[in-house]
Amino acid sequence: MSGPGSDTWAGRALAEVEAALERWVPSDAPGGLGEAMRYGVLEGGKRLRALLVLAACDAVAGSRAAAMRAAAAVELIHAYSLIHDDMPCMDNDVLRRGKPTVHVRYGEAQAMLAGDAMQALAFEVLTPSDGEVAVDVQARLCALLARAAGHSGMAGGQAIDLASVGRTLTEEALRDMHRRKTGALLSASVLMGAACGTPTRRAQQALATYGDALGLAFQVVDDILDVTQASEVLGKTAGKDEEQHKPTYVSVLGLDEARALAGRLRAQALDAIRDAGLDSAEALCMLADRVVERSH
Amino acid sequence: MSGPGSDTWAGRALAEVEAALERWVPSDAPGGLGEAMRYGVLEGGKRLRALLVLAACDAVAGSRAAAMRAAAAVELIHAYSLIHDDMPCMDNDVLRRGKPTVHVRYGEAQAMLAGDAMQALAFEVLTPSDGEVAVDVQARLCALLARAAGHSGMAGGQAIDLASVGRTLTEEALRDMHRRKTGALLSASVLMGAACGTPTRRAQQALATYGDALGLAFQVVDDILDVTQASEVLGKTAGKDEEQHKPTYVSVLGLDEARALAGRLRAQALDAIRDAGLDSAEALCMLADRVVERSH
Repeated sequence: MSGPGSDTWAGRALAEVEAALERWVPSDAPGGLGEAMRYGVLEGGKRLRALLVLAACDAVAGSRAAAMRAAAAVELIHAYSLIHDDMPCMDNDVLRRGKPTVHVRYGEAQAMLAGDAMQALAFEVLTPSDGEVAVDVQARLCALLARAAGHSGMAGGQAIDLASVGRTLTEEALRDMHRRKTGALLSASVLMGAACGTPTRRAQQALATYGDALGLAFQVVDDILDVTQASEVLGKTAGKDEEQHKPTYVSVLGLDEARALAGRLRAQALDAIRDAGLDSAEALCMLADRVVERSH
Repeated sequence: MSGPGSDTWAGRALAEVEAALERWVPSDAPGGLGEAMRYGVLEGGKRLRALLVLAACDAVAGSRAAAMRAAAAVELIHAYSLIHDDMPCMDNDVLRRGKPTVHVRYGEAQAMLAGDAMQALAFEVLTPSDGEVAVDVQARLCALLARAAGHSGMAGGQAIDLASVGRTLTEEALRDMHRRKTGALLSASVLMGAACGTPTRRAQQALATYGDALGLAFQVVDDILDVTQASEVLGKTAGKDEEQHKPTYVSVLGLDEARALAGRLRAQALDAIRDAGLDSAEALCMLADRVVERSH
């Protein structure tokens, strides 16, 4: 499933996403804000969310112009959440993708503002005035992104995470937290890609199931890597979860069972999109493999 | 212009805005997030931005359902910006509207998250899926709000503000900072109200001029009140600008000239909407008076 075709697809898609972010994240925003924003989002990360948007768009033969904007928007939301998450009042992390975090480099006030401005920029990118993206698609993309980023999605999950430090969670409670904290934006990436086309109801449902399973698998693997990999490989501080007494899939299920769960979730994701009448599922399959097999 | 008719209008509009926020800001968001969000936005403030949205909507006989969502959205953006602004890494304010600030009450991490979730909620409120607001209006409202809140608007102005502490600014540089920091959202409120209808080009231009003048007048008056009023009247810490060596209209122009400028800006705002073919300009006139004559 991850043959040379998919790798070429991913390489090209990645280059396009970087170019889009380079173009849309302003270098000339005032008061040094642009520099901090660009530092926080450019040249960093695996761009998994952006690739999910583009793969889902390809799967429904949707508008690539709309999908590129959606891809940049989800990466902006993801990057802003990392900047705020790294701040001293949250995780107090000094290292991200092997570089000093934004607040270490630019100060806390600028880091908070850069994050705030990046969230707004995500919605700005989704709503061009030049007719490049149909207004009904713009509205749908804004609706999906706002719900994934907000109180019922990412921000809500982070609040549960805050409240759960030092507590023991059941697997169900842990699943609920991660479904919001990381799953919501990953699922939304798939749905936003689909919203760039006009999928059948069956395709839409298959993509939703795929996104939900993949979102959860991503977090399970994250928890596994936090205990099995060194900081240098992760590009961020390893072992933080245990140190901060945060419940994780590994602490709740044990390492072996967490690995088995990741495998089952990948199978669920792949099963969902098989025979769903998609135009092309190759990139989606490759991304499911990538999420579960990644080493960082 | 501020006769009993306008007062009734404002009282009724204010009650509707409070009810809308009460309905749309969730009490059940997880991890205590809902409580912090509601604390930060309910029962507080003059709702000037919301009233501008509704007044501009009335002026073009637009959709009240759309305008109520836009009104709630601009108040959510304004409230989130205050929460983040009050945090220790920014203005480090402990008092807001006579109450402890959100981070004092709920901690810094929750305050940051609540602000983040409120920005997302603003775009969620603008994009209902029930057909209550036409999708082209949804897209236009998101576009206006994102640009006003982001790097070229509010967040950009805050970054300039940060960078200008302890420096002397020209009136022009001060005007540029405030045009972004507070003016952008006030102007956008007027334009969002207008976007709920189908104004003529002339009406649209008049409302834009009105919004720009009023936005600037608001900040000039804010600077005047910071030196002339006690903290108890303002409901926030007075004299902060001078203490923090921030340039203000009063420090740059002197008190008398700042007052004269506020008067000229009000006249500009009122001139713009006179004879612009608006359906009703009464509420807009009342709000211009209110901005300049307010005591807190």
